Amino acid sequence: MTVTPAAELDAADPLARFRARFVAADDPSVAAYLDGNSLGRPLTVTGPRLAAFVDGAWGRRLIRSWDEAWLAEPLTVGDRLAEVALGAAPGQVTVADSTSVLLYKLIRAAVGARPGRDEIVIERSNFPTDRFIVDGIAAECGLSVRPLGGPHQAGPGGPEVRAADVAAAVSERTALVVLSQVDYRSGFLADLAAVTAAAHQAGALILWDLCHSAGAVEIELDACAVDLAVGCTYKYLNGGPGSPAYCYVAARLQEELTQPVWGWMGAADPFAMGPAYRPATGIRKFISGTPPVLAMQPLKDMLELIAEAGVGAIRRKSVALTEQAVALTDERLAPLGAALASPRDPAERGSHVTVDHPRFAAVTESLWRQGIIPDFRPPSGLRIGLSPLSTSFAELDRGIDAIATQLRAGPG
Amino acid sequence: MTVTPAAELDAADPLARFRARFVAADDPSVAAYLDGNSLGRPLTVTGPRLAAFVDGAWGRRLIRSWDEAWLAEPLTVGDRLAEVALGAAPGQVTVADSTSVLLYKLIRAAVGARPGRDEIVIERSNFPTDRFIVDGIAAECGLSVRPLGGPHQAGPGGPEVRAADVAAAVSERTALVVLSQVDYRSGFLADLAAVTAAAHQAGALILWDLCHSAGAVEIELDACAVDLAVGCTYKYLNGGPGSPAYCYVAARLQEELTQPVWGWMGAADPFAMGPAYRPATGIRKFISGTPPVLAMQPLKDMLELIAEAGVGAIRRKSVALTEQAVALTDERLAPLGAALASPRDPAERGSHVTVDHPRFAAVTESLWRQGIIPDFRPPSGLRIGLSPLSTSFAELDRGIDAIATQLRAGPG
Repeated sequence: MTVTPAAELDAADPLARFRARFVAADDPSVAAYLDGNSLGRPLTVTGPRLAAFVDGAWGRRLIRSWDEAWLAEPLTVGDRLAEVALGAAPGQVTVADSTSVLLYKLIRAAVGARPGRDEIVIERSNFPTDRFIVDGIAAECGLSVRPLGGPHQAGPGGPEVRAADVAAAVSERTALVVLSQVDYRSGFLADLAAVTAAAHQAGALILWDLCHSAGAVEIELDACAVDLAVGCTYKYLNGGPGSPAYCYVAARLQEELTQPVWGWMGAADPFAMGPAYRPATGIRKFISGTPPVLAMQPLKDMLELIAEAGVGAIRRKSVALTEQAVALTDERLAPLGAALASPRDPAERGSHVTVDHPRFAAVTESLWRQGIIPDFRPPSGLRIGLSPLSTSFAELDRGIDAIATQLRAGPG
Repeated sequence: MTVTPAAELDAADPLARFRARFVAADDPSVAAYLDGNSLGRPLTVTGPRLAAFVDGAWGRRLIRSWDEAWLAEPLTVGDRLAEVALGAAPGQVTVADSTSVLLYKLIRAAVGARPGRDEIVIERSNFPTDRFIVDGIAAECGLSVRPLGGPHQAGPGGPEVRAADVAAAVSERTALVVLSQVDYRSGFLADLAAVTAAAHQAGALILWDLCHSAGAVEIELDACAVDLAVGCTYKYLNGGPGSPAYCYVAARLQEELTQPVWGWMGAADPFAMGPAYRPATGIRKFISGTPPVLAMQPLKDMLELIAEAGVGAIRRKSVALTEQAVALTDERLAPLGAALASPRDPAERGSHVTVDHPRFAAVTESLWRQGIIPDFRPPSGLRIGLSPLSTSFAELDRGIDAIATQLRAGPG
């Protein structure tokens, strides 16, 4: 693959102007931020938005803001997220909790709705929280966990989740299949429609973890007939460190499913304070505690930015960035012994690229000190995360150059 | 009781100067904020603190902040909270999740650690989330719920949780007792030491909900040998709408207890990404997902303010405020048919006072429009919340006066 100069790609990039909407995007102390797949940059409007929130809705409207806006926000922000990034009709997404807690609640709800089935199918090299939560639920509910694609592997890559493998793994025993749309290590992008259909073929439900896809990849939850999905909002949705998660429950399943954490905000009438829990109808029944209102404010502006740019254009930029990352890896890192651990076909790749080299563990600290910030994953993988709205081709170029220089120089 | 003029009380109040540390405390559009027991006011430093966080730790240090500060914050902020407000030694408190989710995790952990016991004792008029979570767990784990003080009551007051009643309710069947230190309606303040001892007498564990006490009442979790506690941070801890909750697990129990939501951040080595969940040691095992870092920033400043004022002085001011609220109720509201629904003995009262009148439902909206902001609780209770660091005696006086005027004028 020939490498087009970064300046040329930036000049031709229709989304280049959005980079200026992020804090310190051209601060020289960060020469290359290649970890937006772990923590997205804040928007320049985020700080002022939070300060205005403190002074206004919180500080002056005080408790009245619950009635005036906040009680509705988990669902209104959920609906907007559904519309701009998830391909989902209103009433199926709520912001709440953390990814881990929502995984717990939805997986418990799903297996509870399939009492005759005693297996959960999961890919054993998936992100730890997904596997751990499934293992915990299997232990407490007396279910089996059926591994897809063999046992856990510690390498920098990740298994390729394909419909045929899922079709082979599921059976009339399968209650639920739990998978990530984009693998957190290799960046492998699963075929949402085909894999979902393979699970449904056996009568199983499917839950997709969208942490590494939402905001960077086009997602069509409704069109793909997905049952359940969860995701965080601090990666390509730029919600801030530890910002709340969200869940999608297809409208057709909401009546049937009951989640186990019976908090007051998921009750039919939270302020009746009545004698017994009666779950709300619709997506609100998947809420438990008081909604994390302050923490979901930054997300709101990013959703509008995604709407403005359009998720189709975002995906095209993402593909261009990862194509360039692959080309630069081949040109500058492969000669130094590094190997691509991500798919070469952009149709099978999310918005990060993982490169493998035995010395990456040793050089990451030095790279970080220089303001070159990829993400190291043990034992030897460097993830190059590319946030379509905030990453420039020049930034990517500086990053790969610095990695090459560091590999040549040795650790230190 | 004679009513001392508000100006006199404010002039003599050693904490009066702290009121200026809160946003818009003297904004004429809010003549009386009497709902800090539901949502505390923000500090004047909170907006700038958040803006600086966005621009600095998040926007410029980016992912590096996780190593530099954030991974430790749930526990360091937890330790500071333990020290200034909970009477607990380090290593026993973490910030995480919501109150509802932490109740779920700790109650499941507690009943799992007492397998021979099949009952949870709970007060049936407690805050809905506590009752609903217990009911959900009882249903899924096949346990019985034993009511303390009779069935659920819908009135504005609340039962008085006393050690003798707890002693009579617990037995060798009791796994856990779940109670609120301060009742959310009446404000009744339970005797933490005596009630905890009564539960222990039967070999049961006890979990205290501190939502309506922490930050306003002196609490000695360690000295009272409390087992478990949870609380929110948006009332007297001024963390903001939907700010994260916290839990306390006594050091002696941490090894024995296992919580059910096996998220990656509660694993022994979160970044090993290994094949199986192995819980962390210490309080960190009660964490599940990525910590809500942005959302816990406002709390940090409030904890320093509490430390500066001293929780003893805060409690004295709280008692003075509630004494004045009772005196004003007797003087100005009782003649209009209102009745005090809170204890008259300040030793048995938290930091809010509830007054009952059949027309309160009709007048609350009008009061709110005038910037007089108590909290209405169906069917007929008005809660007068008194935040020791931000409420002035003049504010309380204006509030009670406006309520009296409104009652005289009729609805509208």
